[in-house]
Amino acid sequence: MITVEKTKVGLVGLGTVGSGVAKILLDHGDRTARQAGRVLWLERASVRDLSKPRDCDLPDGVLTDQIDEVVNDPEIEVVAELMGGVELAREVVLKLLAAGKDIVTANKALLAAHGPELFDAARKHGRTIAFEASVAGGIPIITNLSQCLSGNQVESLTGILNGTCNFILSKMHAEGVPYSDVIAEAQRLGYAEADPAMDVDGTDTAQKLAILSHLAFGAHPDWAAIPRVGIDTLDLADVRFAQQMGYTIKLLGIAQLTDTGLQLRVGPTLARNGSQLADVSGPFNAVRVTADAVGELLYYGPGAGQMATASAVVADLVDTAVGRTRLTFQTLGFWSNDSEQTKVADPTDAVGRYYLRMNTNDEPGVIAQIATALAKEGISIASFLQQEPLSEGSVVPLVIMTHDTTDGAMQRACKAISSFDEVKSEPVSMLVLN
Amino acid sequence: MITVEKTKVGLVGLGTVGSGVAKILLDHGDRTARQAGRVLWLERASVRDLSKPRDCDLPDGVLTDQIDEVVNDPEIEVVAELMGGVELAREVVLKLLAAGKDIVTANKALLAAHGPELFDAARKHGRTIAFEASVAGGIPIITNLSQCLSGNQVESLTGILNGTCNFILSKMHAEGVPYSDVIAEAQRLGYAEADPAMDVDGTDTAQKLAILSHLAFGAHPDWAAIPRVGIDTLDLADVRFAQQMGYTIKLLGIAQLTDTGLQLRVGPTLARNGSQLADVSGPFNAVRVTADAVGELLYYGPGAGQMATASAVVADLVDTAVGRTRLTFQTLGFWSNDSEQTKVADPTDAVGRYYLRMNTNDEPGVIAQIATALAKEGISIASFLQQEPLSEGSVVPLVIMTHDTTDGAMQRACKAISSFDEVKSEPVSMLVLN
Repeated sequence: MITVEKTKVGLVGLGTVGSGVAKILLDHGDRTARQAGRVLWLERASVRDLSKPRDCDLPDGVLTDQIDEVVNDPEIEVVAELMGGVELAREVVLKLLAAGKDIVTANKALLAAHGPELFDAARKHGRTIAFEASVAGGIPIITNLSQCLSGNQVESLTGILNGTCNFILSKMHAEGVPYSDVIAEAQRLGYAEADPAMDVDGTDTAQKLAILSHLAFGAHPDWAAIPRVGIDTLDLADVRFAQQMGYTIKLLGIAQLTDTGLQLRVGPTLARNGSQLADVSGPFNAVRVTADAVGELLYYGPGAGQMATASAVVADLVDTAVGRTRLTFQTLGFWSNDSEQTKVADPTDAVGRYYLRMNTNDEPGVIAQIATALAKEGISIASFLQQEPLSEGSVVPLVIMTHDTTDGAMQRACKAISSFDEVKSEPVSMLVLN
Repeated sequence: MITVEKTKVGLVGLGTVGSGVAKILLDHGDRTARQAGRVLWLERASVRDLSKPRDCDLPDGVLTDQIDEVVNDPEIEVVAELMGGVELAREVVLKLLAAGKDIVTANKALLAAHGPELFDAARKHGRTIAFEASVAGGIPIITNLSQCLSGNQVESLTGILNGTCNFILSKMHAEGVPYSDVIAEAQRLGYAEADPAMDVDGTDTAQKLAILSHLAFGAHPDWAAIPRVGIDTLDLADVRFAQQMGYTIKLLGIAQLTDTGLQLRVGPTLARNGSQLADVSGPFNAVRVTADAVGELLYYGPGAGQMATASAVVADLVDTAVGRTRLTFQTLGFWSNDSEQTKVADPTDAVGRYYLRMNTNDEPGVIAQIATALAKEGISIASFLQQEPLSEGSVVPLVIMTHDTTDGAMQRACKAISSFDEVKSEPVSMLVLN
């Protein structure tokens, strides 16, 4: 008789992702056993409300509404925190660590808010925290950045990190419908939350970019300090102009190592059609990494969804059971203050090409005024698009593509331009991806 | 004073990749130390010919032409085998394993020929073999398949695995020049070997596909039994017809799990323009993986090149020094006969759509004859392309796209068609990617 070892697993939270994880553990124990060399045994799953219908069949005795039955079960070695939210999740994770459990989490908001505290607590208690599912859903970007580029200096990382936004942008481009119409459809289809604010205003992307920047560059950025613009203010007119010029607008998180430190930004960005990031459409994610030895790598996959996220959680459970998580966790010292930190650069020093649109009166001298304002900031014009007004006296959109300049220069120029009487609304500027 | 632990590393072979690895270890010791928590110390590098000029500066005492100085140095813990070739490399690796060294190798031909023997020897001696660099150059596909999909059943894997072939095919499509012209240019540019046979005839792709199939599906395929067609026989006419119909021809390695086992094939394949694999151009690689939980993932990156391959070797050296390699190696039992093996299916049962071209006389009845031959095998025509002959009496190419059929039916139909007097050359058939 062969005795197979067991690693007993607890779940906290049994919503969409939690149910997906339970399904894999219960229905496909053979897989995880083959991959881990031991059975991952779902011992206990705690939920707030026992009466709520669930998307999975649990064996008797697994479900509980007492979180302490997970915390205090000495046989449970690893717990997946899938309850979401921030403050209660923090308390639960701290309790679980103190009780000697290793943690797997999909909760990027938790890590963004309390990463250093939680990782220090894990080190103090000799436990580990794995977080593959916290960024880019089913794409194993955390493992790839933690393990696979160890001979490299990463130079830049550019990601489509929010599937909801990418779905909405794809629709705006393909169907020419404004943001307000698409968001309603995305909510109906389940691609957007009832309250999509954190997705569409760039918060979610900034939190994920902060996590990836730590792994790729050794920086400890505060996500809230990353300059960010969402897609909720994106005007359909800009989608159309971008398309006319051969570009697609994507919500990108960008991290780039420069002489003055790590430049971080989140916002709608023009990507040239035919480039890999421009071609990612629908609720997918992609991460492009450039590094000095390997060159350019691109990862593409589902950014969210029950089973894709569960896939990442289960991979973490297996890595934790096998012991790989412990080795990586010990070596890399995630969010430890002992490690050397890459400095975050002043965002106004960021260099890039820009798209700039202004609505102006169709009067002589406007273009000269704008061109002078740009020249004053040393901004050089690469191309220029002006269409005839729809009717006499109506406002005329002017679109300018610049050569490389700094974010600070661009902001100053926009401020100057917005003060002109002939300019009828705030100028819109967006980065253009190289 | 902080004492940092050292892991002493040996290199066997100091050609293009070996020099790249030496450069990273010597010039960027801080990186590998940060990633491994210990210094990877290049202790000894053995070469055949000491007088040959090298692409890296080694400290005194590192270079030797006595391979036994690596084998017999008790302080060397891990050795990267980068000498290439098969039989001598096999002997060296067996000696190194017996001497208690862990192995890192980029040698896919070695693994394809002697994988089971070498992995058994490693297990016998309690050592490990890491082989990230053996497939897809800088793309960390080995680590991804070994670790990141443990909750999944992989359903299919489709790869552009040979950068030389992809470079040549890209040129044939973009410039409309025949294979014979491009191969000469590729050799001049260093994208093809002086003897490119193993690349262009599909051998290299089949060997890599065999390795990936083991990791993704638990199969133990004999690479030599994988049906394979190279690009060396690809006619420019077929490139043009494919383009006319909106496709790009790629040399693909395809593994697909079916009811009758694992279907494996290597050959030029039509990929629809706008799909991610069709858009990979130049000397790059890409691997598309579909799996039941995660859905579709795509990995893209450099398929070869000094530093990209060195990046993969160094990641393996770090994983070995940290201990991750040992955990993965023990758990997964690479190429062990003890593990359950997924059966390889009969290739003639493979299902797919096909592109079919025949050169025929412009005579009445030819199309009816061909259509009848296809119908007899149950093959249904999806589309049909016949152009007017260039001059009276000249041969007319007929191009047919079929609906799903089996490889066996296609082969039988082609045989029947080639026997018709009006058909002037062997029919050309290629798979069309779904």
